Amino acid sequence: MTDISMIEAARERIGNHAVRTPLLSSPFLDEIAGRKLFVKAECLQRTGSFKFRGGWSAVSGLPAQVRAKGVIAFSSGNHAQGVALAARLHDVPAVIIMPSDAPKIKIDNTRAYGAEVVLYDRANEDRDAIGDRISRERGLTLIRPYDEPLVIAGQGTVGLEIAEQGAELSIYAAEVLVPCGGGGLTSGISLALAAKAQNYKVRTSEPERFDDVARSLASGKIERNATTSGSICDAIVTPQPGNITFPIMAELCGKGIAVTEEEALRAMVLAFNRLKIVVEPGGAVALAAALFHGDELESETAIAVASGGNVDPDIMAGALSRFG
Amino acid sequence: MTDISMIEAARERIGNHAVRTPLLSSPFLDEIAGRKLFVKAECLQRTGSFKFRGGWSAVSGLPAQVRAKGVIAFSSGNHAQGVALAARLHDVPAVIIMPSDAPKIKIDNTRAYGAEVVLYDRANEDRDAIGDRISRERGLTLIRPYDEPLVIAGQGTVGLEIAEQGAELSIYAAEVLVPCGGGGLTSGISLALAAKAQNYKVRTSEPERFDDVARSLASGKIERNATTSGSICDAIVTPQPGNITFPIMAELCGKGIAVTEEEALRAMVLAFNRLKIVVEPGGAVALAAALFHGDELESETAIAVASGGNVDPDIMAGALSRFG
Repeated sequence: MTDISMIEAARERIGNHAVRTPLLSSPFLDEIAGRKLFVKAECLQRTGSFKFRGGWSAVSGLPAQVRAKGVIAFSSGNHAQGVALAARLHDVPAVIIMPSDAPKIKIDNTRAYGAEVVLYDRANEDRDAIGDRISRERGLTLIRPYDEPLVIAGQGTVGLEIAEQGAELSIYAAEVLVPCGGGGLTSGISLALAAKAQNYKVRTSEPERFDDVARSLASGKIERNATTSGSICDAIVTPQPGNITFPIMAELCGKGIAVTEEEALRAMVLAFNRLKIVVEPGGAVALAAALFHGDELESETAIAVASGGNVDPDIMAGALSRFG
Repeated sequence: MTDISMIEAARERIGNHAVRTPLLSSPFLDEIAGRKLFVKAECLQRTGSFKFRGGWSAVSGLPAQVRAKGVIAFSSGNHAQGVALAARLHDVPAVIIMPSDAPKIKIDNTRAYGAEVVLYDRANEDRDAIGDRISRERGLTLIRPYDEPLVIAGQGTVGLEIAEQGAELSIYAAEVLVPCGGGGLTSGISLALAAKAQNYKVRTSEPERFDDVARSLASGKIERNATTSGSICDAIVTPQPGNITFPIMAELCGKGIAVTEEEALRAMVLAFNRLKIVVEPGGAVALAAALFHGDELESETAIAVASGGNVDPDIMAGALSRFG
């Protein structure tokens, strides 16, 4: 079970290998939000998302002999890149299992970060069976994307930084809005803030129709999404909150907020124009919540995590021409 | 004359009011550059460029009674916004003299940062005469964009951060590439590094056909540009290097590098895709030099300053579709 000492230990192991991402602001965004708004620009993290922190934490936290054999992960996106680069920097092999119809750029990037990519056919092959076989044959350790205490601890280092940076800026109390998929980032930040900044309250943000976490927080038990396909916020759409992450979120988070796809795109454009950062749709839902759902917030100050920036340039160009 | 103690004093005055911008990297960019490459992402600074540092340094460095009367600046761009926000945060008036044909968005932004904008007709009015009259009538202090020791000291805080962040990353020696207009940023960084990181050598970067600094460094005396219009890198095009900044650069900088407009646009796209930052054309020339003029560099490690991000979304969308 992840606790604050595990998060602090993850930070020790991460050291200067991850970027201490800045807390950005703009008077233009404050005006739209109707309150002081800060953005934790985690899209600037290595590999373009916070996932590098969890990847590093998990790889570095393995016993040396276990780590030396290598790691394996299932992912078509940010987790793949985070684990791949973390493994390469530890000089250990990484195998990433990806669907054969994943975008070529994501497959190429994951390979470029040093991983061996194993493709499978979504329709006819069993991903888990392939992963089991390879990891058994080679003695690889599976790194789960969120339901893994070391991964949660790594994502929690975002929360440590928010607590410190908030204190530097004399932010006494705030709502901290976090894009939420399986809940690794949200639960890690929640644990860190519960220990280090008790007046900071975490609120989850998700796309409409894929708001399993908001519904789970409301009902008090794990609820599923009807579908996991068809969202431009694909990076944060999971079937349901994690078994390890959900109890943490249920204890520590406020009510969840759902935003529309158009709100996410508008938030991307405002982040581009006003903060000079590139945010992907799923990474922009917390900023969208802060900008366009102010009536669901209570604090004078909001801190929105921009969790990733791995957006197709065409999608950004389209958003700029529609809303720029 | 600016020295390291003035730069350190500027940093004291700036405190947490400016962003400590991160030093970013990507293995994809290292590969193109053929060496380790880091980017000091000063486009993430408040108002979208390093100019906020110089503005803050100058406004905060005035005696309180002088400051209270207000400040004045001539600028159609980043310096205007930097001075305007610095003045507003000090709760003192700012007048910015801008040409009436400046882009409406820049005029609107400068007003939104709290300044009074006075427009003049480039063809029929004398900018300096208007500025003189207003500043005399109201007792305003002129803040020059680069030939001003307090401004140079403020820009020099970028150099202090590069020295510290480089040390954290164990970078023992490097060439530090800086987009250069009048030379305020370049001379400030050069002074800071000469005091704090003697193995870091500053190299200037400019657009082709507007490479007055490179030519001046080569000849040893101030050379002018034939024209100052017609560059997409407008933010860093000035008639000639400053009278205060040039001697500093002549003493401390290596040979200047000139890049093409297409190289600057390609660098913008790579910064977008690989670092998730928005860089304007003029702010991208140092990154372009690192990526595409590696044969003019000597060190194993380059650090390129991305000095600003105030780019028209249409220009970025066009660059993404051409080179993305």
